[in-house]
Amino acid sequence: MNIIIAGAGAMGSRFGYMLHKTGNEVVLVDGWPDHIEEIRTNGLQGTFNGEEIKEKMTIYNQNELSNVEFSADLVILFTKAMQLDNMMNSLKDMVGEKTQVLCLLNGIGHEDVVKKYVPESNILLGNTMWTAGLEGPGHVKLFGNGSLELQSLGNDETTAQEVIEVLNKAELNAKYSQHIRASIYKKACVNGTMNGLCTILDSNMAGFGETDVADSIVETIVNEFAAVGKHEGVELDIPAVLAQIKTCYNRETIGLHHPSMYQDLIVSNRLTEIDYINGAIARKGEMYGVETPYCTFLTQLVHAKEQILGAK
Amino acid sequence: MNIIIAGAGAMGSRFGYMLHKTGNEVVLVDGWPDHIEEIRTNGLQGTFNGEEIKEKMTIYNQNELSNVEFSADLVILFTKAMQLDNMMNSLKDMVGEKTQVLCLLNGIGHEDVVKKYVPESNILLGNTMWTAGLEGPGHVKLFGNGSLELQSLGNDETTAQEVIEVLNKAELNAKYSQHIRASIYKKACVNGTMNGLCTILDSNMAGFGETDVADSIVETIVNEFAAVGKHEGVELDIPAVLAQIKTCYNRETIGLHHPSMYQDLIVSNRLTEIDYINGAIARKGEMYGVETPYCTFLTQLVHAKEQILGAK
Repeated sequence: MNIIIAGAGAMGSRFGYMLHKTGNEVVLVDGWPDHIEEIRTNGLQGTFNGEEIKEKMTIYNQNELSNVEFSADLVILFTKAMQLDNMMNSLKDMVGEKTQVLCLLNGIGHEDVVKKYVPESNILLGNTMWTAGLEGPGHVKLFGNGSLELQSLGNDETTAQEVIEVLNKAELNAKYSQHIRASIYKKACVNGTMNGLCTILDSNMAGFGETDVADSIVETIVNEFAAVGKHEGVELDIPAVLAQIKTCYNRETIGLHHPSMYQDLIVSNRLTEIDYINGAIARKGEMYGVETPYCTFLTQLVHAKEQILGAK
Repeated sequence: MNIIIAGAGAMGSRFGYMLHKTGNEVVLVDGWPDHIEEIRTNGLQGTFNGEEIKEKMTIYNQNELSNVEFSADLVILFTKAMQLDNMMNSLKDMVGEKTQVLCLLNGIGHEDVVKKYVPESNILLGNTMWTAGLEGPGHVKLFGNGSLELQSLGNDETTAQEVIEVLNKAELNAKYSQHIRASIYKKACVNGTMNGLCTILDSNMAGFGETDVADSIVETIVNEFAAVGKHEGVELDIPAVLAQIKTCYNRETIGLHHPSMYQDLIVSNRLTEIDYINGAIARKGEMYGVETPYCTFLTQLVHAKEQILGAK
């Protein structure tokens, strides 16, 4: 299959590498010049389940695609949320009538952006539990196991199964879901609490979870996600979501980690994806007439923090 | 007049000193051993409008009042909000049927605590624009001008005027107000935005005020204060309050300062008064059936931060 990985950071590199190694024609597309240059010169390097890798792979800057002849059967989207629109625009000439577009970004509502470029029948909405690390330009650290679910927005399960077959040949553990939005909302609830709250409070997840206000704050936010989700046909299992969030507080497992938004803003001084997590719930809430004051306020606080820190 | 200053920190020392110098019998009561010891040994020291002072004054620890014979005509309350109940309890034997109690604490709803100890007719609710600095145990820095307003909760303006006369003999610029709660709410709106927000965002006032979300956050919080205030007979002039808050952003005047709550929590690792500002609005909102999600969430975030930092 001809596959474009749009956004070749840690996760994009993982998917690209695994699909490339199993016989697909993979093209990476990214916007980070140092990363692109390193992969062009020395290949994708690092470790895959503990073994050293150094793999020649095709990579383009999204700004230099006009001369590239490549007709994609599948595009897998892994950009940062705020770069999605730009990326879709850059890929226009490589996306044809039959190209399937698999959206694996974190957060809520990305299909609304993708729909501007691709008919709904060609969109696969997905949710992945894989992880990946980027240790520097061109250098990845890939270990552990994961899986993903996806669903065709046009209910074209037959075509979706062809994509699943290719993903599974690469051992990416894909399966078809009839309730992808519920999975996406559930994951977004974890991100919509841990990310923003730990960022604003300058705390790891255990530190926040052990305060006597954590339960009340988290429940209020999850209830806002659930109320908005109802308008999108999502029935969130609130007790299950709350239980999953609580696993983040465990000091023996992941509790002492800071979530990715904290890494983005506090460590790397980069703009966050809050507009596509709590901010998406605030926007959708307004649209559906659902009050979402906690999501709105948290989104505002994170934006204030970005501006105070001069994040870029 | 026999006057107890309950809470002899910076502001209590100012009022105590000025009232003592103009012929009143002043007793300071406090709970900080080093401060008490220093004043007992060397007097109240520091500067008053640039001039060195060293003034012998009577001071007691609030835990050692049982043997003290002093019948107060006036008690002026300047404790931290969370210490008020304890302080009123300590003063019981010194407060008689005719003792007026002037409450000058920052924040909202302190009269509900005072009422447990003193009939409403003896309570004077006040609001002061004086400032004062404490530079260490027993050492104050007092400069600039100020004023205060007060109102009798029992509408006993005649007795209130006697207190005002004593205060004005000490050049404290007191006057009677028919709308003290409106003044208190207005000041609480400034504290209820600048204090909590700058503390959570780790920012000075200008840094927050210059973000593109500041206006929207501040308006929402002030609207919650106004909605709750209505149930207490307070008609808040919202545009005037918003204009006053905006003066805090001015880099040429006070914008580069951090508000007092930031000093308490972030600098000194002390518990904050959030429960008596935004937290009071949240509690009263619940009582009156008024939604106050921003005040509630901000109160929770500040409590989370206190616990994460291990504040005492």
